Amino acid sequence: MRIIESVPNISEGRDQEKIKRIMASLEAHKDINVIGCEPDKDYNRTVISLIGTPEIMIEALVDLTRAAAREIDLNHHSGQHPRMGAVDVIPLIPISGVTMKEAVDYARILGEKIAMDLTIPVFLYAEAATEEKRVNLPNIRKGEFEGMKEKIKDPEWKPDYGHPEIHPTFGAVAIGARAPLIAYNIDLDTHDEKLAATLARMIRKSNGGFQYIQAGPASLIDRGHVQVTMNILDYKKNPIYRIFELIKLEAKRYHVAVPSAEIVGLVPKEALCQSLAYYFGVESIAEKPEDLSLEALVDYAVRFLDLRDFSIEKIIESYL
Amino acid sequence: MRIIESVPNISEGRDQEKIKRIMASLEAHKDINVIGCEPDKDYNRTVISLIGTPEIMIEALVDLTRAAAREIDLNHHSGQHPRMGAVDVIPLIPISGVTMKEAVDYARILGEKIAMDLTIPVFLYAEAATEEKRVNLPNIRKGEFEGMKEKIKDPEWKPDYGHPEIHPTFGAVAIGARAPLIAYNIDLDTHDEKLAATLARMIRKSNGGFQYIQAGPASLIDRGHVQVTMNILDYKKNPIYRIFELIKLEAKRYHVAVPSAEIVGLVPKEALCQSLAYYFGVESIAEKPEDLSLEALVDYAVRFLDLRDFSIEKIIESYL
Repeated sequence: MRIIESVPNISEGRDQEKIKRIMASLEAHKDINVIGCEPDKDYNRTVISLIGTPEIMIEALVDLTRAAAREIDLNHHSGQHPRMGAVDVIPLIPISGVTMKEAVDYARILGEKIAMDLTIPVFLYAEAATEEKRVNLPNIRKGEFEGMKEKIKDPEWKPDYGHPEIHPTFGAVAIGARAPLIAYNIDLDTHDEKLAATLARMIRKSNGGFQYIQAGPASLIDRGHVQVTMNILDYKKNPIYRIFELIKLEAKRYHVAVPSAEIVGLVPKEALCQSLAYYFGVESIAEKPEDLSLEALVDYAVRFLDLRDFSIEKIIESYL
Repeated sequence: MRIIESVPNISEGRDQEKIKRIMASLEAHKDINVIGCEPDKDYNRTVISLIGTPEIMIEALVDLTRAAAREIDLNHHSGQHPRMGAVDVIPLIPISGVTMKEAVDYARILGEKIAMDLTIPVFLYAEAATEEKRVNLPNIRKGEFEGMKEKIKDPEWKPDYGHPEIHPTFGAVAIGARAPLIAYNIDLDTHDEKLAATLARMIRKSNGGFQYIQAGPASLIDRGHVQVTMNILDYKKNPIYRIFELIKLEAKRYHVAVPSAEIVGLVPKEALCQSLAYYFGVESIAEKPEDLSLEALVDYAVRFLDLRDFSIEKIIESYL
């Protein structure tokens, strides 16, 4: 089954009616599964998660963008999160049966369609970027909606699709392909946020650690302990189990326990299977994780990765 | 005590008499400690290691370069290792009481002196590089002695010191500053080189691992096992113990023992202390590694890091 995920971010996080009308544009697409819709008032931005087969996803994302263009006027928008478009960014994420190269192709098809049908200029970013300086979205978005009016006329910032002028109320949109990202936090049985920061530095790329790990400390006031909080940008190269075991190993010297960990949002089944394969190897368990039911995977993930608040709804494949 | 190490590479590895005469140029400098001189016939290149205080090292390195210019004519040189100069490269490595910034300053002073006194063009590389594309030595050296005749006239490849023409028999030299590099190998109790390659990929930068680790597999025919062989380019950010423990952790799933490890060449005392501090923490040993004698450090390094063939002569500080 060929499945991609997309996490479009729209620049409206306050007006529930508008958000509802924009989300309604997805209803015509029965084979799309909307698995998340999280508005943020401070950001004035809503993060939507949907999965489906690539061709149907493209149609749905064009419709979503059309609805956002109708509902949102960035000339009257303010919020804490930087933005350049009514739909600010549309990442395509290969989940199953789709290669990254194919996801890049779908990003191009979607980009061309949005530029043609809706007269919205499109910048390709991340894996779909056409040059190095367009890989990182913040580079493209710098100047935001207000600055983009002039920036887009600079030949250096010619959009990948569409004319070099912003849509007067929508702005411009970034479309790209990227690997699924896992938001993963490891609990430390201490109040010492400095220790969480020390451990984060040991594993994150910016301090010489793993290439695909962004990490920092966090204090959970209600729960009464600290965390190493992180994004795993490529779980194939930096698997969960390796990070978890390394943090346990480092915490030992400080005699601090690592009682649990959590996944925020969704995790691809493959990421769990890959990490469980490590523990199955160590414990000589003959089963193959990929042959297990999602229920069994959850049980093993709780047992070996000490995941708390974990359930089948956290696995992307449970929506397929 | 302010100490730097330098590892000049000279383009003569066969003629012992020539090498002796070049090494003799160092004898006048009593406060320099020559800790290594390893000629390689296939490479036709000799790697020299010396340590001392920065000012005296600069004088010694100018004399060594002068002697090499007298003895070596690159028009009649062949060997397997790429080279562009009779002295091909002179890295300066801060060891004690010297910052990297100061080491860069010393590289500049040395470069200016060699260009002025010996009419040899100098390229600054590594931490001393004046632009991004000169950071990596192979970029500068591309084309080698033969190609450098033309390349150096290209304004893009203007030398940092000296005129844009090579010395007719010497060529050109690269001078730079870099962190001490540790050549470190971890033994695996198996003949399976593929497994060593798998483990190497897990930790090395080029596959998403630690930022400062270059690693690959090696088969030790005589010893009858394989190794993960690596360079640790920055032991402060990627300490030995972390690599060692992670490899042990990963090897567990394959039920392969990790009986020992080795350091090839020299290791700064600080790198050992930093790794022992981890084990002292885990085992609640109250001593501070940096307060121990070098003999005691060796004992602990053998005990906790399972280093084989390790002795005080492997620690740079034993030569101070």
